[in-house]
Amino acid sequence: MSSRPPAESTPREGAAPAPLTLRDTVRPADAPRVEQIVRETGFFHPEEVLVARELVETFLAQGPASGYAFLFAEREGVTLGYACYGPIPMSDRRYDLYWIATAPQAQGGGIGKALLLAVEADVARRGGARIYVETSSKPLYAPTRAFYLRAGYRLEATLPGFYADHDDKLIYTKYLR
Amino acid sequence: MSSRPPAESTPREGAAPAPLTLRDTVRPADAPRVEQIVRETGFFHPEEVLVARELVETFLAQGPASGYAFLFAEREGVTLGYACYGPIPMSDRRYDLYWIATAPQAQGGGIGKALLLAVEADVARRGGARIYVETSSKPLYAPTRAFYLRAGYRLEATLPGFYADHDDKLIYTKYLR
Repeated sequence: MSSRPPAESTPREGAAPAPLTLRDTVRPADAPRVEQIVRETGFFHPEEVLVARELVETFLAQGPASGYAFLFAEREGVTLGYACYGPIPMSDRRYDLYWIATAPQAQGGGIGKALLLAVEADVARRGGARIYVETSSKPLYAPTRAFYLRAGYRLEATLPGFYADHDDKLIYTKYLR
Repeated sequence: MSSRPPAESTPREGAAPAPLTLRDTVRPADAPRVEQIVRETGFFHPEEVLVARELVETFLAQGPASGYAFLFAEREGVTLGYACYGPIPMSDRRYDLYWIATAPQAQGGGIGKALLLAVEADVARRGGARIYVETSSKPLYAPTRAFYLRAGYRLEATLPGFYADHDDKLIYTKYLR
């Protein structure tokens, strides 16, 4: 699977940016790269960073039976972002977007949006009816929450103080059909 | 760890029931027994039954590093119920009660309540501040919901249609301090 973003409407000086490609295969080198991307965003605890890497390793060991699917966004062979998602066990066509992250040096370039659209397209192709995603109420995550709302997700439930005192879990969802 | 239920206030005919004991160690034989208990309750999909067994196997392979803790309720050496719980990753002193189940032939005897109280005591001992537990809105789970409410849990959030159309996820919590 691959896709390209729309051409820039106002060409800038210098070379046009290399095209963004999306890859749905998983390679051993993705484990350390995912760890690096997730760590460098500054949005995640060290414990979370390790979980992100472990999910890649679980997929490498078990394949699709792991319950995880991945999309990697690349430019000139460099992985700049990724998403990890999969069917919610014991649910009927509900999917969870477990991770979506873009390397700091590539943020603001639409990579997150391209990944999210590609995840939604793949989930729809698999027959998925809804996507769920969780985030925190802390100010640090305001851009994350705005990102989901712009993409058509809505706040479905709030768990006050779920992560810690004054740090709520917010659960967003988008119905695909 | 072990505990006994209060003595029966009205002795019944025949021998008094053997005392209930609780065990927090995990043995290889617990994996098939958990699978059997969970399956025989009739409350869980085949996929869920396998997940329940896998958590035991994960603990057997990884120990407490798995993030899971177990309590088994036994009478005369027969395991009649169990609970699986653990700290919620990336949270501050929040715990999840992943599984609690009693064998059908032993239901109505207070084993679930004894397990739940022992889980709460152990979570408190570990410094846990809250316990979360999830269940379904379907009529089949009405006794489960009543069980949590009687035990002091309150409904914290609802995710409409999370499991399937007309099958909501209900999230209960109890604050331990």
